[in-house]
Amino acid sequence: MTTGHIMMAMSLDGFVARPDHAVDWLNKQATHNEDHGFAEFQGRMDVIVMGSGSFRTVVGFGEWPYSIPCIVMSRTMTDEDVPMELRSRVEVSTLEPNVLFASLQKRGLQRAYVDGGAVIRSFIEAGLIEDMRITIVPILLGDGIRIFGSNDRDIDLELMSSTPFPSGLLDLEYKVKR
Amino acid sequence: MTTGHIMMAMSLDGFVARPDHAVDWLNKQATHNEDHGFAEFQGRMDVIVMGSGSFRTVVGFGEWPYSIPCIVMSRTMTDEDVPMELRSRVEVSTLEPNVLFASLQKRGLQRAYVDGGAVIRSFIEAGLIEDMRITIVPILLGDGIRIFGSNDRDIDLELMSSTPFPSGLLDLEYKVKR
Repeated sequence: MTTGHIMMAMSLDGFVARPDHAVDWLNKQATHNEDHGFAEFQGRMDVIVMGSGSFRTVVGFGEWPYSIPCIVMSRTMTDEDVPMELRSRVEVSTLEPNVLFASLQKRGLQRAYVDGGAVIRSFIEAGLIEDMRITIVPILLGDGIRIFGSNDRDIDLELMSSTPFPSGLLDLEYKVKR
Repeated sequence: MTTGHIMMAMSLDGFVARPDHAVDWLNKQATHNEDHGFAEFQGRMDVIVMGSGSFRTVVGFGEWPYSIPCIVMSRTMTDEDVPMELRSRVEVSTLEPNVLFASLQKRGLQRAYVDGGAVIRSFIEAGLIEDMRITIVPILLGDGIRIFGSNDRDIDLELMSSTPFPSGLLDLEYKVKR
């Protein structure tokens, strides 16, 4: 079965964005030449899965940054909502997470980069996330969009590595226990 | 002025307890002989400040564990609610955090161990916390009592140290930037 992988930055109090989705606080720390491994991580992924909110944000950047196929999980968007020039690389899906992963597996897409708060939560809940790379940014935002949501049962993790950087950012790698 | 210091364990998703205040999940990891520095931390403190909820929990343990003076921040409790045998060591206060710290300073109580979710939040908000020692437990609880609350402005932190343990617990030390 295809496996899900997360790489996200969060504030120490667990937010990925301010209430208005702003991520300006990510740039408060001078990170200069620090390599937080995003390119290496992305290079190992076969497909990216995100929600419609993340999709609109990325489209708003102007240039589409991903070379791997992208699945947008949405019940309100259709393929027609995808800009023409992206239709060869982006598809909209209404499948349940486990059904989606079974179909990706059939297509030979083994490792899925799962991005965006609500989508991350539903894939964790479905038991489809194998590991998580979390960068903790040294700030308390107080309010915003939470990276993790409610889950019916404990999700037990195993700490694989922790790497502090001069900027105060801290890279953590967890495996999800089965 | 007296300075506030925090030492708490939280789940990766930022909870100090389950919704029903249970902390059973703290013991899911085998921590054997790991020294997370609590005794050393407590040895450097002159006074402990907590809310009435934490106070009742500690009283429920049967044996009072603190040798330093204890201040219970409460508008509903009075000194009469403190068990007789603890009255020489525990006092109830309705002072605002900054007024309390000014009064502690006059009594020569320089370093205050600030404990309990709501109390921690009000002292962070008042700018009275100098540093925080947070142990991250490798688990997502999904719901519970949050360690941090809303704050009107960003609280910028400086990462002083990070120490991973074989159990998967991770000790972090942050200074609050002024």
